[in-house]
Amino acid sequence: MARVGVIGAGAWGTALACAARRAGNEVLLQAHEAEVAENINRTHANPTFLPNTNLDPNITATQELCDVADCDVILMVAPAQYVRATCQSLKASYKKGTPLLVCAKGIELDSGQIMSEVIAQELPEAEIGILSGPTFAIEVANALPSACTLAMGDMQRAMEVANIIGSNRFRIYASDDVIGAQIGGAVKNVLAIASGMVSGKGFGDNARAALITRGIAELARLGVAKGAKTETLMGLSGMGDLTLTCNSMQSRNFSLGVALGQGEALEDILKVRKAVTEGVFTARSVCKLADSLQVDMPICAAVNKILNEGADITKVVDGLLARPFKEEI
Amino acid sequence: MARVGVIGAGAWGTALACAARRAGNEVLLQAHEAEVAENINRTHANPTFLPNTNLDPNITATQELCDVADCDVILMVAPAQYVRATCQSLKASYKKGTPLLVCAKGIELDSGQIMSEVIAQELPEAEIGILSGPTFAIEVANALPSACTLAMGDMQRAMEVANIIGSNRFRIYASDDVIGAQIGGAVKNVLAIASGMVSGKGFGDNARAALITRGIAELARLGVAKGAKTETLMGLSGMGDLTLTCNSMQSRNFSLGVALGQGEALEDILKVRKAVTEGVFTARSVCKLADSLQVDMPICAAVNKILNEGADITKVVDGLLARPFKEEI
Repeated sequence: MARVGVIGAGAWGTALACAARRAGNEVLLQAHEAEVAENINRTHANPTFLPNTNLDPNITATQELCDVADCDVILMVAPAQYVRATCQSLKASYKKGTPLLVCAKGIELDSGQIMSEVIAQELPEAEIGILSGPTFAIEVANALPSACTLAMGDMQRAMEVANIIGSNRFRIYASDDVIGAQIGGAVKNVLAIASGMVSGKGFGDNARAALITRGIAELARLGVAKGAKTETLMGLSGMGDLTLTCNSMQSRNFSLGVALGQGEALEDILKVRKAVTEGVFTARSVCKLADSLQVDMPICAAVNKILNEGADITKVVDGLLARPFKEEI
Repeated sequence: MARVGVIGAGAWGTALACAARRAGNEVLLQAHEAEVAENINRTHANPTFLPNTNLDPNITATQELCDVADCDVILMVAPAQYVRATCQSLKASYKKGTPLLVCAKGIELDSGQIMSEVIAQELPEAEIGILSGPTFAIEVANALPSACTLAMGDMQRAMEVANIIGSNRFRIYASDDVIGAQIGGAVKNVLAIASGMVSGKGFGDNARAALITRGIAELARLGVAKGAKTETLMGLSGMGDLTLTCNSMQSRNFSLGVALGQGEALEDILKVRKAVTEGVFTARSVCKLADSLQVDMPICAAVNKILNEGADITKVVDGLLARPFKEEI
């Protein structure tokens, strides 16, 4: 039995705590909000972020980051834009050699850095892992079968850690492509918004599938330019996460796109949401990163124009449809 | 204005006739059944195979294959297992140099051949093209935006033909990978049945996304062994068609899998269906082809065991879930 610490008690952090507990570990879940920590400890539930789910009474919660630093494995599940600050807070207590698995998906807005780059700057001693794949939190919490990728620089170490937190119902495939495992998670939220827009406008399943296909092509171009392996981009953390997120109303990013496609205003959609819709931030940072690497990403650029530059959805979509036919590859 | 002939007036043949007509062509649709041809000519509808859709009155129907042979472009939309016999019937009237675009998806059961191989045997003079992509018929018929791949040995010729039958709402991307463009369409129906089974058993979206991802990996292994380009397999005819078919009840193969997953018997499901559920045949032929090329396709093998060898779904799925963790690639 290992001790697993989870930083962040949103839906995904709470679900990962369930998975780690189910694999037979002692689990400590760090919550930002006092009320959330209290609910978990007293009522074994997290109605704020993962309603209608009973948690194992052996999952305990804390508000203190330093408590988590004592664990054998740490899962970092703070939202992408808060990972830097969380690392800074964790620095004083972090113990060298403790695997720190990033479970946040996104690119930092100000720096254009991916999560492993942020952590390498703030916690240079950290043994970084990337845990990413097609995983809606509620299904993992309820022990439905799920699979994801764990990438660490040392494949052997990734296999060891996979065996600590994985189980039959939460299957973890090891990889040594730390960069590649982050690209899918970062870009898919933006593509999911585009996919939602296509659905919201009533364009049908064919159009969505075409968009997803052109989407994986631009995701792969970015990944390769950044140093990822193509195989990783076609795997669970890339294509797998993309096909999940772009096809289901369970995704916050997809459902945001649907609402936009149906004509709702961005402000109105966001103001009734408790949880972060990462793609809204990531659209800008993906485009910035793509520019710096001179990679063409027309779908992400279109989403960014609509979200952040006030472009009209109908005009942008018609523009994409009116391009001349060409060779596929 | 070109004359486009469509062989086969099922849902997909009828939808392609609509698309070709919308692109400004004269369209002749060949129907196997007298009643279907009569309905199209008299009432401009095909209630048997594409209900609730009005057809352009300028689409005319015939029962005679030789009428279609006079056209400038021929679309072959007979089901995969009937393509050989159709070629034999077409042989006497086929004019050398007429593009013959295969729109059927599948592998011939007896021979294990893909469609281009069947045609090359029966109509060696044919200028073969493969038209394939993520396209539910009803959406194409209703002019919702769709995109697909047209592969011909000569890329320039593919571009020319694409410009004849394509339009803004039916976008055609050219390719010269004739083999690659057939692999996705052949294998995806089998994977869609697997995906449906996972849904029917209530395993959730994560499990389905994981299955699709492992599915594209085995589809790509088969394709590469057969001589396809990887990029084609990741394109509209491969990954695109897979993500469409594995995520929607509109797919006959997916919905068959759902029913199987919910415990219905194969015979009971098939006996109430008018249209062909290609994956039931293809499961066997894909496995046969995979064996001959020594390619490992565990998901297709599992589907084949369930459909054709009476294996128990629950046991097969549990077997897949119980495998040890390993490296992803």
